[in-house]
Amino acid sequence: MNSIFSEQEQQYMQEAIALAHQARYATKPNPNVGCVIVKDGKIVGRGFHPKAGQPHAEVFALAEAGEQAKGATAYVTLEPCAHFGKTPPCALALVKAGVSEVVIANLDPNPLVAGKGITILKDAGIQVRHGLCDAQAKMLNLGFLKTMATGLPYVRLKLASSLDGRTAMASGESKWITGAEARQDVQHLRAISGAVVTGIQTVLADDCQLNVRQLKNVDLSTIVQPKRVVLDRQGRLPLNAKILQQPEQTMVMTPFRAELDALGVIQIEPQPLSALFQLLAQQYQIHDVLVEAGATLATACLEEGLIDELIHYIAPTLLGQTARPMFSAQLALLATQKRFNITDMTQIGQDIRLTMTPVTGAV
Amino acid sequence: MNSIFSEQEQQYMQEAIALAHQARYATKPNPNVGCVIVKDGKIVGRGFHPKAGQPHAEVFALAEAGEQAKGATAYVTLEPCAHFGKTPPCALALVKAGVSEVVIANLDPNPLVAGKGITILKDAGIQVRHGLCDAQAKMLNLGFLKTMATGLPYVRLKLASSLDGRTAMASGESKWITGAEARQDVQHLRAISGAVVTGIQTVLADDCQLNVRQLKNVDLSTIVQPKRVVLDRQGRLPLNAKILQQPEQTMVMTPFRAELDALGVIQIEPQPLSALFQLLAQQYQIHDVLVEAGATLATACLEEGLIDELIHYIAPTLLGQTARPMFSAQLALLATQKRFNITDMTQIGQDIRLTMTPVTGAV
Repeated sequence: MNSIFSEQEQQYMQEAIALAHQARYATKPNPNVGCVIVKDGKIVGRGFHPKAGQPHAEVFALAEAGEQAKGATAYVTLEPCAHFGKTPPCALALVKAGVSEVVIANLDPNPLVAGKGITILKDAGIQVRHGLCDAQAKMLNLGFLKTMATGLPYVRLKLASSLDGRTAMASGESKWITGAEARQDVQHLRAISGAVVTGIQTVLADDCQLNVRQLKNVDLSTIVQPKRVVLDRQGRLPLNAKILQQPEQTMVMTPFRAELDALGVIQIEPQPLSALFQLLAQQYQIHDVLVEAGATLATACLEEGLIDELIHYIAPTLLGQTARPMFSAQLALLATQKRFNITDMTQIGQDIRLTMTPVTGAV
Repeated sequence: MNSIFSEQEQQYMQEAIALAHQARYATKPNPNVGCVIVKDGKIVGRGFHPKAGQPHAEVFALAEAGEQAKGATAYVTLEPCAHFGKTPPCALALVKAGVSEVVIANLDPNPLVAGKGITILKDAGIQVRHGLCDAQAKMLNLGFLKTMATGLPYVRLKLASSLDGRTAMASGESKWITGAEARQDVQHLRAISGAVVTGIQTVLADDCQLNVRQLKNVDLSTIVQPKRVVLDRQGRLPLNAKILQQPEQTMVMTPFRAELDALGVIQIEPQPLSALFQLLAQQYQIHDVLVEAGATLATACLEEGLIDELIHYIAPTLLGQTARPMFSAQLALLATQKRFNITDMTQIGQDIRLTMTPVTGAV
């Protein structure tokens, strides 16, 4: 479908994508959206959705364009909304402003609302095209788009190991196998996630917080911190765990404990992983899940086919055969291996980061 | 030292390096050398050393230049030789041809001959400079340069594993973890090596040949095949092993066996790995050694600090914790890990290839 778009139009949409990108840590649970208004070959308005509860991208772009919006073309990264939520529908705002054409990157994949925004625009006589830079725009909202389409979150599994696939010495000693840059990179993964999920063993071993503590060139007060979700089927989480220091940010899957309730922690009934992920998306609007866990939970996620993306940091070191394996599955045959496609390979400090997707659908 | 060379001169030397590269599989045990002759800003002669026993690069380049060599500048990737071997010394040939200047990339690192070629040139009134593109030229002859400087070969250890550091299923099933492109890439590594070293366990398990069977766009009859060296301290190599099908290409480190002697196989007395590698370099002019082995021999080479370069093919797959580990060392502490620097990272088909050097000297 891209052939109907000019190179100039691609540049406009890329500008809209870059605008959306500016708020990538801040809009959760809303999607990242950017918009530019073009009149007579000139960009006259720019906007992006900065934060849930604040106006959408189109509203800012139209405000900047003012009277020039009349007869202009709007380039917007996601289909304009058609519903009255915290703000009036953007499709109506575009109609009111008098734009003559709207170009969209991604359609809203929610079968209940898809096309409604476009219908409003077309009914008002506005010309609508879509699909411009759609693959690139999709990267802005992998979680939102997946949840809208399927009801399930987009799940990233973060792994870190040595060249020989070890995550720690036999003693548990593991600080640090990967370098500072790789650990900094994980902060970014947390910051784009609605929740970081981990197992009780990891919390007991590391007393981790799993929050975002540092992002290069980003003021942390502007971001929405991910929720932390601890899977604790036997109710072993100590009340002095660091992860409970911000109880309102912490969810624990546990048999009910009154003392956690008193702290204000959200408790979730023990349930299968797939049901838990569905619950996170549908009840808590968590569209992007980052799993940071040990071998047991990582293996379970892979074996149950719940992983959309594997992000593997590899440190150029060998730890030996007595060190801890990264993966606890017991596969007997090559035919049962879990295969991936490499979508990105980047050197991060002294380490490398491989980004992979399962070879067919989820692993 | 590069600052004394112009950009134009860098191009001349790169041309000489590209010429040398043409015979990279064919000159063993001699180094790869290229030469261009430049007169009045124009290349008037090109040459490279094609094969042991044939003339050196300078001779071909001077022959092409003919009378134009008088007053010209020669760019040569390695210090011209000063000794009468199978051919007369190249330094004298340059003097006779009347060149007025010689620019060298790498000096001959052999302390017994280093500088002698330059002395012949200077004594004849020829201006000599060196160090142009030296790092790039060094890549042509890592083994030759190391052996000349230290008496030891340059040792590459090839590893192939899954993401979780496994080389085969518990049953031994391993065909194939990495893809066809990665296996093809290994053929190149063999072809630049004077010997491929392996352990008896690998031969017993795979009945491997370890020769070069296919190289893209290269006629195999033009290359010098690597010797195959089997480490067989207990004399277990079966006489019908495929690796003995070309006995003159095969060396076995074994207690003496008359039946191997009858086949024409070179037998080497059992000795420590470091002594063996030294013997290969000094007695058999094997400057580049490729170790293709299982966990036992790979680990021994690493633990004894004998590896100059680690080449690790990683297949994007997980094989599980019961699969075979790539490395048998029993390291107790993070402080004893074997660390590397990544010098190259390339996607090869569906797999990745990491090239690494030990963090300090040999591992």
